[in-house]
Order: sequence, then structure tokens, then C-alpha cells
Amino acid sequence: MSVPASAVPAFDFTSRLSRRAQTMSASAIREILKVTQRPEVISFAGGLPAPELFPLEDVRRAADAVLTRYGPAALQYSTTEGHPPLREWIAARHSIPAANVQITTGSQQALDLLGKVLIDEGDTVLVEAPTYLGALQSFQPYLPTYQEIPTDDEGIDVDALEALLARTSVKVMYVIPNFQNPTGRTLSLERRRRLVEITARHGVPVIEDDPYGQLTFTGETYPSLYELGLERAGGVEGNHVIYCSSFSKTLVPGLRDAWVQAASPVILKLITAKQGADLHTPTLNQMIITELLPILPRQVDVVKKAYGERAAFMISRLEAEFPEGVAFTRPKGGMFLWVTVPGDIDTTPLLARAVERKVAYVPGSPFFAHGGGKNTMRLSYTSATPDQIREGIHALAGTLRDALA
Amino acid sequence: MSVPASAVPAFDFTSRLSRRAQTMSASAIREILKVTQRPEVISFAGGLPAPELFPLEDVRRAADAVLTRYGPAALQYSTTEGHPPLREWIAARHSIPAANVQITTGSQQALDLLGKVLIDEGDTVLVEAPTYLGALQSFQPYLPTYQEIPTDDEGIDVDALEALLARTSVKVMYVIPNFQNPTGRTLSLERRRRLVEITARHGVPVIEDDPYGQLTFTGETYPSLYELGLERAGGVEGNHVIYCSSFSKTLVPGLRDAWVQAASPVILKLITAKQGADLHTPTLNQMIITELLPILPRQVDVVKKAYGERAAFMISRLEAEFPEGVAFTRPKGGMFLWVTVPGDIDTTPLLARAVERKVAYVPGSPFFAHGGGKNTMRLSYTSATPDQIREGIHALAGTLRDALA
Repeated sequence: MSVPASAVPAFDFTSRLSRRAQTMSASAIREILKVTQRPEVISFAGGLPAPELFPLEDVRRAADAVLTRYGPAALQYSTTEGHPPLREWIAARHSIPAANVQITTGSQQALDLLGKVLIDEGDTVLVEAPTYLGALQSFQPYLPTYQEIPTDDEGIDVDALEALLARTSVKVMYVIPNFQNPTGRTLSLERRRRLVEITARHGVPVIEDDPYGQLTFTGETYPSLYELGLERAGGVEGNHVIYCSSFSKTLVPGLRDAWVQAASPVILKLITAKQGADLHTPTLNQMIITELLPILPRQVDVVKKAYGERAAFMISRLEAEFPEGVAFTRPKGGMFLWVTVPGDIDTTPLLARAVERKVAYVPGSPFFAHGGGKNTMRLSYTSATPDQIREGIHALAGTLRDALA
Repeated sequence: MSVPASAVPAFDFTSRLSRRAQTMSASAIREILKVTQRPEVISFAGGLPAPELFPLEDVRRAADAVLTRYGPAALQYSTTEGHPPLREWIAARHSIPAANVQITTGSQQALDLLGKVLIDEGDTVLVEAPTYLGALQSFQPYLPTYQEIPTDDEGIDVDALEALLARTSVKVMYVIPNFQNPTGRTLSLERRRRLVEITARHGVPVIEDDPYGQLTFTGETYPSLYELGLERAGGVEGNHVIYCSSFSKTLVPGLRDAWVQAASPVILKLITAKQGADLHTPTLNQMIITELLPILPRQVDVVKKAYGERAAFMISRLEAEFPEGVAFTRPKGGMFLWVTVPGDIDTTPLLARAVERKVAYVPGSPFFAHGGGKNTMRLSYTSATPDQIREGIHALAGTLRDALA
């Protein structure tokens, strides 16, 4: 059938969209990245893991092995909860029952499903300022009201949290304690303990998003909020922390394998929500990830070593080149660092100037639930070579000097 | 960390669930299937494609080939819209732009995302009576009001549809025109034309779900509602039909690859919704499916020949064994047939008796948005051997004869 340009007017779908669809807008980052994907631009904007570190040959062997071992079952429909050996491995890390683990199609799906089963229109959701933009996108269709908690170099300000909980009814809190996206900051141990205690006391469930926790450059790690919640409650069902993590930043992202661990009432609703959302995470992919588990420690070592070197080199160039008055975080793990320029510079229009100098970053404003942070930007060091970091930071420093002049 | 049984009481997550979560219940079929998965039971209950027909070695070769061709990019994050060559192949089937195609993680995700961007609480959604249970599950979190349209051997009753649209404001209609799940019925050509005309006239978008259309036993096919909508509108943007299909029933289900084609306002909102839902469908899987496209015609031939033979044999056994008064459909394609027993027999409690005789089916009631259909059941013939069909139908006929006595 050959289709001419529309002979009748366009069908008016726009007026048929749901209210929530009318509030949904394409990711600002996504639109920005389109401009910065020209090959001559050195981009610190993306949040992509370094592809040259992917265990490509291991994936090839794993795919082949599971197709041999499981045969057609590797390609058949499977259970909504997830591949049993994968759930068991995850559960064993915290000595919890596998029944308290739900496999998801990336952490992004975990956030969508948690939003679906927890958030009613108008519910107050606490988020860090700034927070992961993708979480705001996942929760937005459920029409929450966001309350932002300020953060500093030790992460979320727990005094501000306590004051807010004393006067506001909160449905759920969302937090990224380790090497946060976008700031690279880590919540201190003392604050972790207080956060868990305060939220438990106020009966506020906490969604802990931990994609980066294993990628520590110093070897130093803190207990997760989930672990502190377990300790406090003395068991899985009393724990008010819901934990999300992923294989995307340690093994590979393109297979879309992640998980949630939580008390049974949450998991049971997640199962039902996931049945309606995609039936199950692809079978073959879960089997491949399971097959790769023995190489996970080695792979984590490879990734954290490479990112640690790249972060250190980027920080050294920032120290050498950035004009006075420009501040930046010094992450001890993860994929991002956060730059704050003097207050009257807006990094969104500045991006065009940076791209003229062939360097790109992500303006910080979209990471704030209520806007703001106009004088901030996120830089990723994961996928850049030393030469690119040297050249790119030089160009960015020049852009900032011009703007400050 | 060792975790004792909960030392403090279970955290009260149940009172924190969203209103929509409180309306979501686990699939009745899912719960029923658990009972019937004992190996000694011959199950016509599942809706699984026949695994022995999967092109296992082709998938193995395809996985290897795309890992070689694309390298780490096969395992990297990729665009939300989907793998470009796959979108282009899909678009070319109807000579529409690739920009009007969105890849989804199974058709189930297509239904979830369409519900998300179209349905507000209380909106009227038209469905067939009976309809695909999974669609009801996908739409339910968006809290629609269902209106059921009666069906007969030619599919949906378009006179009833027309009468209903004359008096009711309807947000969207959902229909499975080919070899419907659960009935196996096909909407006649005359009714397709009228359905497209009537819904267009009333400005009601139609979601056409077509996972089974290619699996025709007779070679006879009708134009899709989407094609009739294109013809009527003279172009993509004027077409009020939204088309969903999948590779799950023709290639393999476990890779979770499906798609939506629709006018741009719908696709643009689906992209945003999918960003929040799972970022993108797994990269490797889309590449494998694309690599398998050359074998798709051969694979469709294999599957439809096998299912056609199994359906014919099951129908012959139903004709030979079923007691008088029990009616059943004679599908010309797809995976299911539909049985109607005399009115006072309830197939839900009857299932326990059938399982005692080592045969299982799915009671029909969950396929009705408002319940009803208590005297119906769905049988799948896709995964049974001739011996299993012979024995299973014999046992089921015995169960029915006892119930009727």
C-alpha cells in the first residue's frame, strides 16, 4: 500500500492524551545531547559506561552457554519475578529470602513500578536537590508533589530532613547515597544512620537507588541504607528501606537487568505491576547476566580502576585550568562530578558557547525537581581519553573564563 | 550480615500503597496455572508458543553475528525509539515513516504505555467481551471504566458498537481482530470496514492488538484496521488506529520485542513514557531480532503449519468426544479456541475436577472486564502432542459429561 501525505487532517490525538501525558515532557538532557553528538565535540555530557571495558567475549560465551544449557527455555516466556538463580544470588548478598527480590528491566523500570504502586496524585515525594533526572521522569506520570532536601558535600542535609518530616506528611523518600548522580557525592555514615532512624520513626518508606555503590575508587564503602534498615528492624519485613540496584554500571547496560529488594507487600504489588508492564524481563538476558556473575568481581575491579584514573585526571585538569570561583566535587567513585560556577552565570545558554569550542556538558538545572541550580553542570569522565579530558577541560575552562570576564 | 526473623513488627507498607495498587490483583490465570503445572497434568491452559519450533540455532548465530558486527555497541545503552534498522523494516511493511514506529519490550509494554498516555481515571475504554486479560491488567493501573461490546463468530458486534457510541463518550477502543485471545475468532472484513468508519466518525482512537495475524491456517487474511484507517485517512497522521504487534508469536517470546505504529502525537508521548519506564528495549535483543528478519517468513510457515495441524486435531477430538450442548470455536489461525458449556456449569470450580483427571484449561471468566462468562473456557493447542490432545480432551470430555449428568 502506498501512502500519500495525509489527505484528511491529522487525527486530533493531542486532545485525547491523559492528563499525566500532558505533564510529561521529553528529557531535557536527551534533547541537549542531540546537539552535542557531533563527532568533533568532546562530550562530558553523556552518562554512558565506557564501552571498551565491556566484557564482550564473556557475553558471547555466556550467550552461547545458556542457549546450550537451557535450549528453547532461554527464549521462552518466563516468570514475572525473574530467573530463580539470579534472584537467589542477589538475595544471598544480604541473606534475605529470594522471594524478597524482583528482577526489573533496568533500574529505570524499578523506579517506574515503585512510582506506580506507591504514589497517588498529590502525594509528597522527597528528593535530593539535585537528584537523578530519570527518577523524576519515572515518578512524574503518577503526579506527585516534590519536596527537595538540600545537600552538601556529605550528601543529604538530615537536619533539614528532620525539620521537614516534623511538619509535612510524606509518602516516600528517594535517595542515591553512593556517588550520587549528578553530584558524585556520598552520604556520610553518620547521616546514613540518622536518615534511617528519622524516616523509620516517621513511618516514611525510603527508596534507595544504588547503581554505583560498587564503583569505589578508594576501597572505602559504607553500609547501605537497606543494610542499616535491616539491622534496625532485625528482619526483612520490618525494613522500611526499598533497595534498587543494577548490573548496568558493573557488567553491561544494554541487556537491561536490575532489581528491587523489599518487604513482601511491596514485592507482591511489584509483581502484579510488572505483569501489566512487560510480563517479565527478557529470559535470555537474565540467564546471560547470571552466567557472568563469576566475572563480576574482576569486572568491577576493571571498571573502578579505569574510572578512578579518569576521575583523578579530570580533577587534576579542573584544578589546573578552571578559573577561580568555580567549585567542583571530588567524587570517590561512580561516574560523575558536579561543577558550580559563580551565581550569575546560567549554564544552559552557555552550552552553545561550549559547543562552539567543541566541548559539551549537561546543565544542572534539570536535576532539580523545582528548577534552580542554573549555575551548575554535570561532567562525566567515564568515556573520555586523557587527551580528550585535557582538550575538553581546556576548552571548557576557556568558555567559563569568557563568561566570567 | 545474618538476618533473624523480624525482631520489630512488619513495616506497614500496605497502608502506603497507591490507590491504583490497591485495585491491582495478580492475574487469575497466573494463580490458576500454578496449580496446573504439575508434570502429570496435560495443560491446555498456558498461552505459550511451542518451544520446539523456536529457531534456536538461528538465534545463536544471530547473537554471535551482532556481537561481532556491532561490538560493545550491542551491549551499550541505545535510543528509546528503538534500533533504527528494525524500525525501518517495520515501517516499510505499511510504507510509513520509521518515525511512526516505537519498539517496545513486548506488546505488554505497548499496552501499558498506551494506557499511560491515553487513559485518565474514569475514562471509558471499550473492550470486546471477552478480551485479552493482559490488556485489562495493563490498563487497570490507570483506573478506566470498561464498557464491553458483545462478540459473536464474526467478532465484535458493530451494531452494538454504533449504538453505544451514539450515547456514550468513549476515550479509546481496544480490539484484537485476528484469531482473538481468548476466543480464536476473527473480525470479518465487512465489520472491519464498519468499525473503522464508525470509530473515525465518533473520533474514538482504536488500539489494534495483532500478535497472531500472521499465523493463518487457511492463507486467508483481511486488511488490518490500521490499513483500513490509513486508506480512509489517506495518510499516517490522519489515521485514528494505533497498531501493536510483536515478534513473540512468530520468532521467540523471551527476547521481548514488539512495536507500536501510530500518528506522531502518540509516538512522541510513547517515547517520553518509555524513557521513564525502561529507557529502551534491550539493545542486543533488538539486534538479534533484526538479524532474524530474513528467516521470519520461513519461521511463520513452520509455526502456522504446526499450530494448524494441532488445532485441526484438537477440533476433531472435540467433535468426537465433547457431550452435546457444548459449543466451541473453530479458529482459522492463532493459538486458542473457546468452549461454551451449558449455562449452569461454572468452569472455575470445575477446574479442580479436571485437574483430578489430569487435564487443565483456563476458566473464561477473567477474560470479561465485568466478569460473567462463567460457563466458558479457553483451550490452547499450541504446545500439545497428538497423544496429549487425545488423552487430555478425553479427560476433559469426561469431566464435562460428569458435570452435565
